[in-house]
Amino acid sequence: MAKNIMVAQSGGPTVAINASLAGVIEGAKKYFPNAKVYGSLNGIEGVLKERIVSLDSQVDTEEKISLLKQTPAMALGSCRYKMPTDENDPVYDKIDGTFQKYDVGVFVYIGGNDSMDTVLRLKKYFGERNRDVKVLGVPKTIDNDLLCTDHTPGFGSAAKYIATTMSEIASDCFIYDLDAVTIVEIMGRNAGFLTMAAAIPTFLGEYAPQLVYLPERPVRKEKLIGDIKNALKKDRAVIVAVSEGVKTEDGEYLSASMPDAFGHKQLSGASKVLEKIVKSEIGCKVRSIELNTPQRAAAHMASETDIEESFMLGEKAVLAASQGENGVVSVIKRISDEPYEIKIETEAVEGIANLEKKVPDEFINEEGNHITEAAYKYMAPLIAGEREITYKNSLPAKFKIDNTKLI
Amino acid sequence: MAKNIMVAQSGGPTVAINASLAGVIEGAKKYFPNAKVYGSLNGIEGVLKERIVSLDSQVDTEEKISLLKQTPAMALGSCRYKMPTDENDPVYDKIDGTFQKYDVGVFVYIGGNDSMDTVLRLKKYFGERNRDVKVLGVPKTIDNDLLCTDHTPGFGSAAKYIATTMSEIASDCFIYDLDAVTIVEIMGRNAGFLTMAAAIPTFLGEYAPQLVYLPERPVRKEKLIGDIKNALKKDRAVIVAVSEGVKTEDGEYLSASMPDAFGHKQLSGASKVLEKIVKSEIGCKVRSIELNTPQRAAAHMASETDIEESFMLGEKAVLAASQGENGVVSVIKRISDEPYEIKIETEAVEGIANLEKKVPDEFINEEGNHITEAAYKYMAPLIAGEREITYKNSLPAKFKIDNTKLI
Repeated sequence: MAKNIMVAQSGGPTVAINASLAGVIEGAKKYFPNAKVYGSLNGIEGVLKERIVSLDSQVDTEEKISLLKQTPAMALGSCRYKMPTDENDPVYDKIDGTFQKYDVGVFVYIGGNDSMDTVLRLKKYFGERNRDVKVLGVPKTIDNDLLCTDHTPGFGSAAKYIATTMSEIASDCFIYDLDAVTIVEIMGRNAGFLTMAAAIPTFLGEYAPQLVYLPERPVRKEKLIGDIKNALKKDRAVIVAVSEGVKTEDGEYLSASMPDAFGHKQLSGASKVLEKIVKSEIGCKVRSIELNTPQRAAAHMASETDIEESFMLGEKAVLAASQGENGVVSVIKRISDEPYEIKIETEAVEGIANLEKKVPDEFINEEGNHITEAAYKYMAPLIAGEREITYKNSLPAKFKIDNTKLI
Repeated sequence: MAKNIMVAQSGGPTVAINASLAGVIEGAKKYFPNAKVYGSLNGIEGVLKERIVSLDSQVDTEEKISLLKQTPAMALGSCRYKMPTDENDPVYDKIDGTFQKYDVGVFVYIGGNDSMDTVLRLKKYFGERNRDVKVLGVPKTIDNDLLCTDHTPGFGSAAKYIATTMSEIASDCFIYDLDAVTIVEIMGRNAGFLTMAAAIPTFLGEYAPQLVYLPERPVRKEKLIGDIKNALKKDRAVIVAVSEGVKTEDGEYLSASMPDAFGHKQLSGASKVLEKIVKSEIGCKVRSIELNTPQRAAAHMASETDIEESFMLGEKAVLAASQGENGVVSVIKRISDEPYEIKIETEAVEGIANLEKKVPDEFINEEGNHITEAAYKYMAPLIAGEREITYKNSLPAKFKIDNTKLI
């Protein structure tokens, strides 16, 4: 078996994806004590372009591991590269060439369901050629939409940030003695897990958000207006959490449902569209807030549970490789909610690559305008715990890989 | 002298305004040990409508004081009430009636420059009638645009949140190997202090934001495009921090400068307008992010310096009243930057009410597209220190005044 390990990160950022990288680096020390650990810059593209750094030498102290774990996004950079469907494409041989050059026997790819497609294709390629390169996946996505794992690394931290921010926005909304609607738009184009997180404060004694709309349930404009009017009868300040991916009954995104005067589809988000609807149909004070990029970048609000699990998943991939596993992804299985107990296992990549999970029915209320206690119970342990952040010059410190030091 | 103290909060929220309230409550215990401490709900409107709560009984433990200090927005609610200019308006007698009923000898109003107008008018009213009611102001605003004080309570925490979030967004932007422009819109309609805070990461080794535009310098579209093109020559990912209040050369808000096809002024923000300009003139990947409400609500990222100073300002107002001062506002005077040293004093309310401070020239670079080292030195101590936040069910705990328990 070739002796070195290469790792790369791919897809959209989370605040936990570097914790998984740290887990791979630490796992390598434990399970492959003689191996070199290489990092490929910008995902699989770095393998193709031979843009490789030495992680052994760059992440060589406990302090750096700890900083890496609190650094958001991909320390190694990312890519959105789709592997060719034709296995005979020279891209594969180019990758193999780089692996041979650096004597890589284990390749770990940290990414979402698209990145797991790369794991699947590389596994097949090396398998068919009897090349002893083990290819492993470590999942990540704030969207929590991967199969075979109870939840995804990165979700718990995004959920904690969203829930905290919603609670803070609620404090902001209730100060004036007048009717007002605040619409908060949450990420998640196809799955509503992140928007579910926005509802957490209502299970902890907060009045808001009173209404929560997920992409899993189409909305009707009349029902929306009715819901908001009803909520305004009870509270003067109403907060609506809406997923960017909410669709209307005809299957279109709400965000695309308001043509402008020329009939052109607008590019504004779901919250802006809803803001206009409330303004014209109800007429009270209304504002919209898009939580935007900080949802996947706010490392200062990371969930300790999420960061530690993400680390363990990285470590597990290396352990699995050391035990001869190949073409598998490390996943989280939940044993119990209270006390929260999990185990880290592996699953065949075929069950994850290119597939999507949706919010299950039992997490959405009958009216389709809020979530259930079961949803809260599912999320509660995932947002648990706060990291002790190291600050430098009054801001959270970050670890940077020197991407000019190519080997 | 009448014996009790009444306090109220007014204007827009900050995360430090409850720390000032806590300071008033604790100051009252020290300097008026026999007084009752009343809170008026929704600012001066609570005095008019006799919506009064007992703060002695509701905030009666150290734990509650500590929770109050980490709770964003106004625990007592707020208002946007403008006092009548005619001193003979019955509103004044109504206020006096409530004060007489509750035997109020000290009224402390925590708010911005509009709220200080209320302090000024009440001081005059009681002065002319020889009524022994001392009226005092405690400043607050995230905008940092008040005169007579080195900086305003609430600014340091907003600045810390903005700087942290910018640093996190920077991590998010630099992961892909392609040209991309990210525009981040910061609050501050007339003063650019908050947008200045977005530039802090560049003084701490971060590459971004490369460009920073404040309302104090009008922008030309051609210059903007040129600046961004130049920045793209150096870095593939360019981040632009732009104040919501940035104006064009003809004095109009940039946000209002893009009429739609009918010539109607659009309601979109400065960042959306800039996004469209970059898309059409440069054509690279571009996105815009409005930091929005969390800037003034993110108590979980409060600056310890800000919270403690805000507390001291509340306490100082009560001390000043006990020493016979009237019609004054507690303010911060800076003695030195390094080591950071301040003293808390009082200033006549006339110097603050209805007036606005702008970012001084020496804080803005010559090109008008970034800030200077002097600006960073001014801000650095204000964002220093992190509060030890108390969490409950994995979210920052909040203190709530029971506004149904009127007395």
